[in-house]
Amino acid sequence: MRAAFDARAIDALLVVHPPNILYLTNHAGSAGILVLTRDAAHLVADFRYAEAAERRQASPHACPSLRAWPVPASYEEALVTLLADLGIANVGFEAEHTTVARHEWLRQTLQARQIPVRLAAVEGVVEAARIVKDAYELQALRTAASSLTPVAAAAIDAVRAGVTERRVAGAIEHAIREAGYDRLAFDTIVASGPNAALPHHRAGDRVIEPGDVVVLDFGGVMDGYCCDLTRTVVVGPPPPDASRLYEAVRDAQAAAIAAVRPGIDASDVDAAARRVLEERGLGAAFGHGTGHGLGLEVHEEPRIGKPRPGIAAAVLEPGMVFTIEPGAYLPGFGGVRIEDDVLVTPAGCEILTAVPREMLIVR
Amino acid sequence: MRAAFDARAIDALLVVHPPNILYLTNHAGSAGILVLTRDAAHLVADFRYAEAAERRQASPHACPSLRAWPVPASYEEALVTLLADLGIANVGFEAEHTTVARHEWLRQTLQARQIPVRLAAVEGVVEAARIVKDAYELQALRTAASSLTPVAAAAIDAVRAGVTERRVAGAIEHAIREAGYDRLAFDTIVASGPNAALPHHRAGDRVIEPGDVVVLDFGGVMDGYCCDLTRTVVVGPPPPDASRLYEAVRDAQAAAIAAVRPGIDASDVDAAARRVLEERGLGAAFGHGTGHGLGLEVHEEPRIGKPRPGIAAAVLEPGMVFTIEPGAYLPGFGGVRIEDDVLVTPAGCEILTAVPREMLIVR
Repeated sequence: MRAAFDARAIDALLVVHPPNILYLTNHAGSAGILVLTRDAAHLVADFRYAEAAERRQASPHACPSLRAWPVPASYEEALVTLLADLGIANVGFEAEHTTVARHEWLRQTLQARQIPVRLAAVEGVVEAARIVKDAYELQALRTAASSLTPVAAAAIDAVRAGVTERRVAGAIEHAIREAGYDRLAFDTIVASGPNAALPHHRAGDRVIEPGDVVVLDFGGVMDGYCCDLTRTVVVGPPPPDASRLYEAVRDAQAAAIAAVRPGIDASDVDAAARRVLEERGLGAAFGHGTGHGLGLEVHEEPRIGKPRPGIAAAVLEPGMVFTIEPGAYLPGFGGVRIEDDVLVTPAGCEILTAVPREMLIVR
Repeated sequence: MRAAFDARAIDALLVVHPPNILYLTNHAGSAGILVLTRDAAHLVADFRYAEAAERRQASPHACPSLRAWPVPASYEEALVTLLADLGIANVGFEAEHTTVARHEWLRQTLQARQIPVRLAAVEGVVEAARIVKDAYELQALRTAASSLTPVAAAAIDAVRAGVTERRVAGAIEHAIREAGYDRLAFDTIVASGPNAALPHHRAGDRVIEPGDVVVLDFGGVMDGYCCDLTRTVVVGPPPPDASRLYEAVRDAQAAAIAAVRPGIDASDVDAAARRVLEERGLGAAFGHGTGHGLGLEVHEEPRIGKPRPGIAAAVLEPGMVFTIEPGAYLPGFGGVRIEDDVLVTPAGCEILTAVPREMLIVR
């Protein structure tokens, strides 16, 4: 972080994005503001978090340079007091996470009170540190991902003709709790029959029918770290389109996994999956990116997608963790998606999720 | 919305906050940008939402003035194209929901391409419309809140000595699904024993013990609308502090509910609860506000808290819906919180949640 400060000519960073605050301090609250200086983490947090903070600071998860600041009136006022006390002139702020309203208030208030702080917009400073996971984080991510195995078994077990998508989602979420996760990583998706053509369908009242293709997409958060898995199952003998789609998506995923290694662009992994689907005439049926980073957030860097004009793709490094989840969707018929979580290793990649990827046919 | 446009001298509003987009268009996606003009809702949404949008527009939930815009490259580029096509000079943007980075990019891009748009920061335009619920919304909120009754029964049934907080949370979440909710409104809280002193504790590995006070705080989302309920139960014969705290919080909640009527400040409801706790010597033990609005978001306007300098409290009107949830927390011992959801009526208020509020003692 100090090197990032040097590169941006700042001596402090105002951090407002909760996962970034968690990363730097272990403060897990939904509220909180951090001012990171070159030698301390000044955390502004309200009454609700006081006892949790005391416990944490007495544990192995203590942040050694933490200085706690109270919130006597509002977070904004507490922040102004802190900035005045610190007396640091060049303060960066997270432009991607700070609203125009908050920035304007802060700028005007500092000016009105003659507190000589120059606010500089910076982007991705903490995210750049978060993209490569350390040993503690890898352990957490491995445990979170491998704990999905019994959840996947429960999910597949719950799918059958005659039950609603909602019932299957309930069974998945129950299994996520039983497996020891703290919470869901995102709203569980159970998309059956034609709903499976909607990549962001959640789970509704539709009753699963024989011949349905059912996309199951779920994940949990364990010790702060996220995992994310998708399997597609077929109810009864698969219709011809189901087998064709499944094979194409499975081969696309295998090609993307085989492509992963340090030194290549993240977009090369996307291209490997996309090429397979295009060869099978399914290029237009694959309308989303191939994957996304996983860590304290369920969608973080690196983005595994098509190259974007003017934006450099991430170059893969050992320690990056992301999903590989190609899909193919045919409106009216349904869709198939297969998703696993991988870690970039010096030699290639390690698959963190340990659930079979072959097409499963249930009653 | 047209009157709000007049008051702010704008002819279009750039809406980026997903609940505001949902409110105005029924688009429920996590991505999407809306440009609301005086006669149409221009919705920019990507491929993933195309089929859901077609279905919705063919349903009774269609937005009659919707015009759909695709996302050929990025949302930002699609927005610039749309603004150029519309040719509207005065465009408001949601300053509380727009990041500095996005605003700066948009401002510079419009300037570089000589698209004559003046961006004006506005706040709370859509939120002001959302604060008073219409008949459709009230029906949705009533159904969501009253459906918590079996969930509360399942929650209380799950609490007993020897089980973990996590197991109780799993039972609650299972019951939320079974009751027909689409998803959780927030991460379920099961705070037992000393953890009950942490208002934002979630649910962990602690095993519930005889004599524990256990705070259960949970809610679901049904047809887009949120509900939120807290009950506190005691395991075995209550320790003396538990009964004293419970009675104080119950009386504080009753006083706040009795205070609700149109025309008073939201902060008067908070004051009614706070007065009771202060009289019992528990003023310092009640460190949060009395409640928050409920609707498409689980925390929205009106805020039911202490008056804030320089910010006018909301004046209650019929059709407002919010929680009333005073609490008292003693570090080391634990805490009590009781929460219900109420609707402001012309005569006073209607309690939407229908779960008994007396102290429950379980094995």
